[in-house]
Amino acid sequence: MNAGYLSQINKIIDIALKEDLGPGDITTSAIIDPSIKGKARLLAKEEIILAGVEVFSSVFSLLDTEIVVEYNYHDEDVVPKGDHICIVKGSMKGILSGERTALNFLQHLSGIATLTRRYVEKIDPSQVRVIDTRKTTPGLRMLEKYAVRMGGGFNHRFGLFDGILIKDNHIAVAGSISEALAKIKGRVPHTLKIEVEVDDIKGVKEAIRAGADAILLDNMSLEEIREAVSIAGGRVLLEASGGVTLESIEGISQTGINLISVGAITHSARSVDISLEVI
Amino acid sequence: MNAGYLSQINKIIDIALKEDLGPGDITTSAIIDPSIKGKARLLAKEEIILAGVEVFSSVFSLLDTEIVVEYNYHDEDVVPKGDHICIVKGSMKGILSGERTALNFLQHLSGIATLTRRYVEKIDPSQVRVIDTRKTTPGLRMLEKYAVRMGGGFNHRFGLFDGILIKDNHIAVAGSISEALAKIKGRVPHTLKIEVEVDDIKGVKEAIRAGADAILLDNMSLEEIREAVSIAGGRVLLEASGGVTLESIEGISQTGINLISVGAITHSARSVDISLEVI
Amino acid sequence: MNAGYLSQINKIIDIALKEDLGPGDITTSAIIDPSIKGKARLLAKEEIILAGVEVFSSVFSLLDTEIVVEYNYHDEDVVPKGDHICIVKGSMKGILSGERTALNFLQHLSGIATLTRRYVEKIDPSQVRVIDTRKTTPGLRMLEKYAVRMGGGFNHRFGLFDGILIKDNHIAVAGSISEALAKIKGRVPHTLKIEVEVDDIKGVKEAIRAGADAILLDNMSLEEIREAVSIAGGRVLLEASGGVTLESIEGISQTGINLISVGAITHSARSVDISLEVI
Amino acid sequence: MNAGYLSQINKIIDIALKEDLGPGDITTSAIIDPSIKGKARLLAKEEIILAGVEVFSSVFSLLDTEIVVEYNYHDEDVVPKGDHICIVKGSMKGILSGERTALNFLQHLSGIATLTRRYVEKIDPSQVRVIDTRKTTPGLRMLEKYAVRMGGGFNHRFGLFDGILIKDNHIAVAGSISEALAKIKGRVPHTLKIEVEVDDIKGVKEAIRAGADAILLDNMSLEEIREAVSIAGGRVLLEASGGVTLESIEGISQTGINLISVGAITHSARSVDISLEVI
Amino acid sequence: MNAGYLSQINKIIDIALKEDLGPGDITTSAIIDPSIKGKARLLAKEEIILAGVEVFSSVFSLLDTEIVVEYNYHDEDVVPKGDHICIVKGSMKGILSGERTALNFLQHLSGIATLTRRYVEKIDPSQVRVIDTRKTTPGLRMLEKYAVRMGGGFNHRFGLFDGILIKDNHIAVAGSISEALAKIKGRVPHTLKIEVEVDDIKGVKEAIRAGADAILLDNMSLEEIREAVSIAGGRVLLEASGGVTLESIEGISQTGINLISVGAITHSARSVDISLEVI
Amino acid sequence: MNAGYLSQINKIIDIALKEDLGPGDITTSAIIDPSIKGKARLLAKEEIILAGVEVFSSVFSLLDTEIVVEYNYHDEDVVPKGDHICIVKGSMKGILSGERTALNFLQHLSGIATLTRRYVEKIDPSQVRVIDTRKTTPGLRMLEKYAVRMGGGFNHRFGLFDGILIKDNHIAVAGSISEALAKIKGRVPHTLKIEVEVDDIKGVKEAIRAGADAILLDNMSLEEIREAVSIAGGRVLLEASGGVTLESIEGISQTGINLISVGAITHSARSVDISLEVI
Repeated sequence: MNAGYLSQINKIIDIALKEDLGPGDITTSAIIDPSIKGKARLLAKEEIILAGVEVFSSVFSLLDTEIVVEYNYHDEDVVPKGDHICIVKGSMKGILSGERTALNFLQHLSGIATLTRRYVEKIDPSQVRVIDTRKTTPGLRMLEKYAVRMGGGFNHRFGLFDGILIKDNHIAVAGSISEALAKIKGRVPHTLKIEVEVDDIKGVKEAIRAGADAILLDNMSLEEIREAVSIAGGRVLLEASGGVTLESIEGISQTGINLISVGAITHSARSVDISLEVI
Repeated sequence: MNAGYLSQINKIIDIALKEDLGPGDITTSAIIDPSIKGKARLLAKEEIILAGVEVFSSVFSLLDTEIVVEYNYHDEDVVPKGDHICIVKGSMKGILSGERTALNFLQHLSGIATLTRRYVEKIDPSQVRVIDTRKTTPGLRMLEKYAVRMGGGFNHRFGLFDGILIKDNHIAVAGSISEALAKIKGRVPHTLKIEVEVDDIKGVKEAIRAGADAILLDNMSLEEIREAVSIAGGRVLLEASGGVTLESIEGISQTGINLISVGAITHSARSVDISLEVI
Repeated sequence: MNAGYLSQINKIIDIALKEDLGPGDITTSAIIDPSIKGKARLLAKEEIILAGVEVFSSVFSLLDTEIVVEYNYHDEDVVPKGDHICIVKGSMKGILSGERTALNFLQHLSGIATLTRRYVEKIDPSQVRVIDTRKTTPGLRMLEKYAVRMGGGFNHRFGLFDGILIKDNHIAVAGSISEALAKIKGRVPHTLKIEVEVDDIKGVKEAIRAGADAILLDNMSLEEIREAVSIAGGRVLLEASGGVTLESIEGISQTGINLISVGAITHSARSVDISLEVI
Repeated sequence: MNAGYLSQINKIIDIALKEDLGPGDITTSAIIDPSIKGKARLLAKEEIILAGVEVFSSVFSLLDTEIVVEYNYHDEDVVPKGDHICIVKGSMKGILSGERTALNFLQHLSGIATLTRRYVEKIDPSQVRVIDTRKTTPGLRMLEKYAVRMGGGFNHRFGLFDGILIKDNHIAVAGSISEALAKIKGRVPHTLKIEVEVDDIKGVKEAIRAGADAILLDNMSLEEIREAVSIAGGRVLLEASGGVTLESIEGISQTGINLISVGAITHSARSVDISLEVI
Repeated sequence: MNAGYLSQINKIIDIALKEDLGPGDITTSAIIDPSIKGKARLLAKEEIILAGVEVFSSVFSLLDTEIVVEYNYHDEDVVPKGDHICIVKGSMKGILSGERTALNFLQHLSGIATLTRRYVEKIDPSQVRVIDTRKTTPGLRMLEKYAVRMGGGFNHRFGLFDGILIKDNHIAVAGSISEALAKIKGRVPHTLKIEVEVDDIKGVKEAIRAGADAILLDNMSLEEIREAVSIAGGRVLLEASGGVTLESIEGISQTGINLISVGAITHSARSVDISLEVI
Repeated sequence: MNAGYLSQINKIIDIALKEDLGPGDITTSAIIDPSIKGKARLLAKEEIILAGVEVFSSVFSLLDTEIVVEYNYHDEDVVPKGDHICIVKGSMKGILSGERTALNFLQHLSGIATLTRRYVEKIDPSQVRVIDTRKTTPGLRMLEKYAVRMGGGFNHRFGLFDGILIKDNHIAVAGSISEALAKIKGRVPHTLKIEVEVDDIKGVKEAIRAGADAILLDNMSLEEIREAVSIAGGRVLLEASGGVTLESIEGISQTGINLISVGAITHSARSVDISLEVI
């Protein structure tokens, strides 16, 4: 699924299974004999953009290596309301013990993909990228950023280690945009671009002068964004950020901006409605 | 904070810090000297019910044992829009490197507490409990269930290991409610009550006859719930469940039901708006 | 084996293998070529109740995925003195390196099952349950409680998280049994029963009045237990506890008590005698 | 305590605390306010040889860094029945939540020390060593071997990595004692002695001829042991092993043997009786 | 030390301590009483560039929180042959048990810093950067890249996750430099520059045309490098790579190249000579 | 490969993969479709003694269980310059993502084996052993000591836990060689020999008198070593140590010494030159 090295994904699945199973699923163990085999199917109770099928499968295979999942849809697909996403086959005991953990991952990640797609549908993707932020759920960043990509969005940096973003507080301590940029230029790997956060047109001009590769326009008006685009003249990348909504994104996307970052797609996406039915 | 044994909380914080910091915060390291001290305050940009201050503090102390946080509010408190929740003091480098991770926890958990409180305000808490479900974010269950309590809700079981809930699929495999209950009774620790999920009045009657201690009424109408309450006559606990909303909860709470479980308070709460300002 | 989620069992096996193997089995590595295959059988040198065959097998498969164990007996079975429990087939190097660790688990767990069975044989299991306590060996609780079940005993709570037991010290701090019960009732999940420890008849009466679901009678005489049974009249579960021996259990079981907890079955069971013979 | 590197001890304590506390001590959390401070003392309900006070203290300090334990006795001491071992001071909530885990360690380790001392008292320690085996409880080897030393015993090798013991199965595969010794000599570090297990006098002679440094006499009669001692004539160390009991050890110790290994001191020691009383 | 989040450094120190200490330092435990305090000093037996003092200190504080190290020199400093780097004070037992592990880190990291400095001294650092590669020792990358910086070098990307480098094999599979670049441009975060490896002048031209931000010149002659510099004309960064030695680096640095990467500074630096003397 | 219990090797591989892959190989993911299969071969660019093929294979199988490596050479073999060591077959994405990590292990370990072999070739292995030290790279000791064996060297103790070496500092604290030996003899397992470090002939005599099994001659001249050999007369093992080089080892080996320890084979071996070519 390209969400990263598998042993890292398995670690968070293992944590999730342990917090649900603890010393054992007492209801299922008492009622269901481990030798009973069966099937269950996964029903989309609303239209969703699917994300997380490998994690969904891995939950079951960590519990019982013989449980198999057969998919009708893949990550990135639109699953219409009422369709079956997949069939899970194997021991009923394993299926019922893993059900909630597997669904918690799939509903959460598909929720993010589905909301991201709604944002992406408002813009012209050949001109602008919808990008995510570091406002993700603790422990799930790799998976959530993967879900953003499945929804048609793009990733900003993964963390503080793989991208440079000089924010207002950095500038305050450094003294000015120019001084902050000067310090950075003498230190960081040549493989990284340098992005600076500014909140007015003056900042845009200073950042360009000081040699920024990209500029984050924090909570600027449409008019200011248009002015920044005009000043930049294609020499630097421009990112609009701050309180972007499904209502406001279209307008912003038409200013000539390159990137629009939306925190809500990771920090406030609701879980989509999916249920598992034994058949 | 009573969210559980501290080393377990620190484990998820450690995972969160590692996914954000990786091999290091390159922007801050390049610009801010580790010897620079400073302060920042946390601003509530909307009214919130606070949850997660110990986790917020722990993020910083895992990064730098000398960073101190002084609080004006505590978990469970209502923080009015515009008030300052706390002041963070210590090395600016540590504060800026930990900011996002610490906020991701606090905004997420306070989001859950705040939404829970909105549900609780619709009912008479001396008569009915708003309770949570196992529909939590993978890896965060202990913290999210703690946030539910801070919002005035109560916890259902923590996982499959500390409570018995016989669901429709268990009953299907066992043959009937009575048979499932018979199997359970001969096996499980005497410390646990037995709850059964039913979806009609016939189920309610069979569950009571078979000796259930509690019954989950799945997606029943108000009328059916009232009939179940009348049949139960106080002999068993009754829990209403399934698609409960801020609009529907008040009506349900007036049926005489004991417990109302709401998945949305953990799986679909949006993050609340809090920002950290260097001062 | 239903002792819990497999990755948790494998963790303690991994710890055990590491403490025995460290940087390598120098004797076996120097003498036995890894390509030599062979067989060994497991001899019961006394009559035992078997418990732990999955752990026994897992020790070898963690060392060498191609070692196979074929069993003549299963957990819960009585293995007569002199019978062979199983045959282990595969690389001699792996078999000899894993032998001690695998046996340490099997002899310890079967020791617990065997001692538990001796207690259970003294009572009428249709009337009374022999139950375990939290007096288990650090790190092995899930496995030891599994062994108790294999011996015909039942489990009390697994830990402090999945059952409520108000003990003398809790009562002392709360002020009285009634006050402790009142505090608990407003806080804990509805899925749990509430058990109270008392040491006299007065306590039994107060606990029933205050709404306890179960009462632990600590070190009471047979006469007192009988009186408690009479007072309870079937309204609450009664557990006898404290210094129960193979000599005293029969008498206690005939008082009308529901549960008898025995710490010795986990904290003082001796290892049973099993040896591995290369054939 | 010299039981090894502290972070390794803390790991097993952490596992033990997690298996007892899981998502939280629900009884104590509901009843006892975290701000209540108090004291408890530890009562020896029988005469014991103490072992494990550092582990006992560490359980509490991992739970709550402010709990303090003050000792009247130290490891290796004889604690008379009825004496108080120590006083625990700090938050009542922490003391009650950690009580069982801390006691499980101390009662188990002191049980081993106490039983070891009973064996040691039967022999003349200036002539013979009582030594342990690898028949230890999975996960607790370092602590149990430490407890053996506190009881006056000595340690055999810690695992397969720090000592060489050529057993019957190694000999069978190698062809003969001489061939096994020849293979070993060309391979292993010069820092290790080479011990061989034999079960008859012929084996003793062959082992000496082949250059063994020590010989384990497996289940030999007193007469055979005496003959082995005479043959060895002080050139190699001799270890008696196999089913040694409190009854048989004195006789064995008077044969001139150097070492007597006793599996029972680790695999079958019962827990000693210690209780914690809030004062 | 800015080598990254401390808990990650402590993890590799913990691994190193465990591999050296295992179940305990038997020599020191037998000879040196834990109560004996003392001092030791660290002697530079050759001129070194110091790197790793925080790791050196952490080894001791993980073993014994009361051991203190007082430094005469800091990371990045030149320590002349014969000077004392620091004094270690505390329990002799802890000092002797930690000595080898602490020195193994310090000698290895200072070895890297010292060799890096020798390369840096051959070039004009205002014009060219000496940079490292991913040819580091498994498990030590963060520390080794830190040591490179202490030696005056700069870091290339930390791993496959924080920088883009299209290598010959990528190009082979993609079909051409242009196609590889086209694929990358539509996918990766906007925060990263794109570097391409080429082995001839034709490659340089194609990479520039296709929009690369940087070009790695693999094993090119001085003449080719000069031609590449001339073609690039400052529009892209140029990195010389492949078998650079202390002899060849000066010539390469005078071609107008921007970056020279040297694998040997991490994969083949010898350990510097430092010894600890008890005083 | 007999380098120890596999799960311990996999742990360091996992750490190495995580530090290189982090949240993902962005270059390869963007350019190479996971379904593309291919082959690559490993070219020895100089003559090497091979060590680490199992680790090399494990890196790929941890990444992608379907990647297969077929070897033309095995550990311990001499691989001539220009020969192909093995072919790697499977998904190109997996091969390219694992390449660097797998090579870092193989080049480092083969570097140690190759350097060790050069030392061994200078001596007569039927008379003297080249042995390693504890001067190894943190985290890699088991693998590096394995590589020493592949080069024809022998291992000294693995750590502080499996061998006794009384060093100058121990002697200083104990008062004298005799006192240190007396303390040790009453404490340590009978399975271990006792080695003492001395720096003059007087020390040799005292160590023999006090009953040492082996003596480390620290930085002694050839003449002194010969005298020590003559004094020892075969009664104790003698180890020469301290600054041994490829130039000096032959002379030392001809003194009658038993063991020569060389720190450089682990702490200062350069990486050998191996490259992976897609075919």
